[in-house]
Amino acid sequence: MALDKNPKSFTKITLDEGEMPTQWYNIIPDLPSPPPPPLHPGTLQPVGPDDLAPLFPMDLILQEVSSESYIDIPGEVLDIYRQWRPSPLYRARGLEKALGTPARIYYKYEGVSPAGSHKANTSVPQAYYNKKAGKKKITTETGAGQWGTALSYACSLFGLECEIWQVGGSFDSKPYRRLMMEVFGAKVHRSPSNVTEAGRRLGADPKNFSGSLGIAISEAVEIAAQDPDAAYALGSVLNHVLLHQTIIGEEALRQFAKIEETPTLLVGCTGGGSNFAGLSFPFIREKLKGKMNPEIRAVEPASCPSLTRGKYAYDFGDTAGMTPLMKMHTLGHDFIPDPIHAGGLRYHGMSPLISHIYELGLMTASAVQQTECFEAAIKFARTEGIVPAPEPTHAIAIAIREALEAKKTGEEKVILTALCGHGHFDLAAYDQFLRGDMKDSVLKDSDFESALAALPRV
Amino acid sequence: MALDKNPKSFTKITLDEGEMPTQWYNIIPDLPSPPPPPLHPGTLQPVGPDDLAPLFPMDLILQEVSSESYIDIPGEVLDIYRQWRPSPLYRARGLEKALGTPARIYYKYEGVSPAGSHKANTSVPQAYYNKKAGKKKITTETGAGQWGTALSYACSLFGLECEIWQVGGSFDSKPYRRLMMEVFGAKVHRSPSNVTEAGRRLGADPKNFSGSLGIAISEAVEIAAQDPDAAYALGSVLNHVLLHQTIIGEEALRQFAKIEETPTLLVGCTGGGSNFAGLSFPFIREKLKGKMNPEIRAVEPASCPSLTRGKYAYDFGDTAGMTPLMKMHTLGHDFIPDPIHAGGLRYHGMSPLISHIYELGLMTASAVQQTECFEAAIKFARTEGIVPAPEPTHAIAIAIREALEAKKTGEEKVILTALCGHGHFDLAAYDQFLRGDMKDSVLKDSDFESALAALPRV
Repeated sequence: MALDKNPKSFTKITLDEGEMPTQWYNIIPDLPSPPPPPLHPGTLQPVGPDDLAPLFPMDLILQEVSSESYIDIPGEVLDIYRQWRPSPLYRARGLEKALGTPARIYYKYEGVSPAGSHKANTSVPQAYYNKKAGKKKITTETGAGQWGTALSYACSLFGLECEIWQVGGSFDSKPYRRLMMEVFGAKVHRSPSNVTEAGRRLGADPKNFSGSLGIAISEAVEIAAQDPDAAYALGSVLNHVLLHQTIIGEEALRQFAKIEETPTLLVGCTGGGSNFAGLSFPFIREKLKGKMNPEIRAVEPASCPSLTRGKYAYDFGDTAGMTPLMKMHTLGHDFIPDPIHAGGLRYHGMSPLISHIYELGLMTASAVQQTECFEAAIKFARTEGIVPAPEPTHAIAIAIREALEAKKTGEEKVILTALCGHGHFDLAAYDQFLRGDMKDSVLKDSDFESALAALPRV
Repeated sequence: MALDKNPKSFTKITLDEGEMPTQWYNIIPDLPSPPPPPLHPGTLQPVGPDDLAPLFPMDLILQEVSSESYIDIPGEVLDIYRQWRPSPLYRARGLEKALGTPARIYYKYEGVSPAGSHKANTSVPQAYYNKKAGKKKITTETGAGQWGTALSYACSLFGLECEIWQVGGSFDSKPYRRLMMEVFGAKVHRSPSNVTEAGRRLGADPKNFSGSLGIAISEAVEIAAQDPDAAYALGSVLNHVLLHQTIIGEEALRQFAKIEETPTLLVGCTGGGSNFAGLSFPFIREKLKGKMNPEIRAVEPASCPSLTRGKYAYDFGDTAGMTPLMKMHTLGHDFIPDPIHAGGLRYHGMSPLISHIYELGLMTASAVQQTECFEAAIKFARTEGIVPAPEPTHAIAIAIREALEAKKTGEEKVILTALCGHGHFDLAAYDQFLRGDMKDSVLKDSDFESALAALPRV
């Protein structure tokens, strides 16, 4: 199609509310083989729905193990989604012009949610199903704070209590994140905390001072498991969380269809994997159907490279070893990543479903250093007007690399990136970068040895 | 019309891009009399376009004095507006339910702009016209930081330098605001600064330590006046700024028409008045035409009550007395308001155009204390999911008062508020409120005497 040549024009591709998807997409039935099941750490037998019942409401457990391709989004969830959805798809004309690239770059922007990121796509249904199941309170962990903000937002709308363990390093460096959660009525602890057994035990080791997602999960799970009125919620990793995020990709497909454009490369950052899955799973479906053939690329931080340097093995989702064993790309549940600014990507493992899809050869992965990410972020902010969170700058960095490569080769590339949240609470990181004080992470193979050696034997 | 009764439903009233207004509305020709002209401080004669030429490009000066009712929005400005416009109009069902009120409350949300507030509606055209006039740099002041953010955003998109004087109290309490401007490439000074003559002179007086908008304006004007490649930009007060904001009200009118609803009360916060004018002027036009009859209410902070306790007189727009004399409601250009959290409302004067409309009896005004505002803000955040900036909480506080009054009387009220920005950079203020440490301002009549006595004699 003939595209508008005005370089200042923001091409925003919108959908009417009536075009918003009303179902989530479950990729599992479409895969050549199903992912290996989670195992009970005691019996090493596959975990059944009843094993998960102390932590999650049955509706979410059934979504976790569903073999249906599509699951209806409840009307009450759709009503709240409509506060910010359908989210816009933008063509990055300002960035393209600054790079002088022939590549066409698009970004699907999830920072328009009141919580500031894609996390609200799953916090709202999780709060809804917990409310429906009669729960009074939800506990969770948060890394960068995006997930904690999104869950406290959703809990406030459904009248649920919310108790959050925020990774220590993030708690210390992002006080506004904690305040945002408190404004929504949540109770926030610095993790490791002294209000849980796991927190006291792990917090006694000085190497755990800055915390990790694995430790914070242990704390939140412990409290939820003790209280029949409480449930635990996870912001990534699990199948049902990835499922809820697929509305992103379903919308993006409809938006691309509107402009008669097909991406040749999808890039999304990966921590636990939910943002990446949300954008890419519907495109992988189209790829499996032979309707398009984009490269699907996950981008992770060089300091926490579970896909590119981890092992594909059964491991715990948390540090204390309280969760089922999941087969995933992992750096070991004891691995404590450097306290980089992309706190949302500091997770030792990768979603089992994404790990499986990676093993199937349906996607690729790269790791990047944070200074390259922030350099890309500044370029993006000054040309596109949006200040990204540190996490999606990983995808932007790769999009820029690829666009510059296209400039050399003249190849026609259509790049789609997941811009999963804004960076309003991450400006101290930008400050450090602009002052020239940001450091990259230099990890030797030996840095991974001890945590990998401590993987459970299955 | 039959309205949806589901209390959890966010009623978002959207416009298609094709329904976005393409003209700004100039209210002056529709008023029974024109506002008194600005005067040259030396000659006391009305200021002509040439007097303003050292500071502003001619396109903006012609808008300032225009007698046309409608002015076309340039295509390049529309292209950028489309990044976030048309902005959503929401029905506040969650808040209504929590209040148990029969009133219907709507809010027009401008926090969806990448700069986070309505200020981008004027920063984009101001940057555009300056670029078109060959300017290389724009100087400005900023109070809360919303305007500085919006101007630095617009300058980055048009490749202009941006130099900003941020009111000292805001600079100290909102470091993320400065960082956001720096991410967009702006240079930011704490005002009073030592890089201007005005800053050095006024900064020598300890009472000016926390600064004021009036002082910051003096500094920005001084630098722009010295540099032929530079221009000055104001984020409120002037006719052309209010003009650019009318797209808010024009959209809101179209959105109300879609749901066949008519407001009975409009409330907007007022500092310099641009947000209030943006929403209300198109409704005042409809009122003057006899098509509807809403009460139009400005809400100002009790600590800076220019409409409710100021004098209608000629005064300077800045503290050093460098601007033309404008007839407006003023507390005196020497007045330094308490350092409240709504930094955007800490201005000694009120837009001359709004002051004139107030004198004509076409609108009313109230003043509220900040603790009432933050109490309203918490209620709003926990029911509507959006954390408002301190400025629009003034309008929310009055909307809640009126909705509770309607609950007593059973009166059918349809309230429309201007939610002009989000509070992501104002969370320290929320923290102070939640800790119970926020103070209200208690001003006696004698507190206003000295600044009012120093009004220029005209």
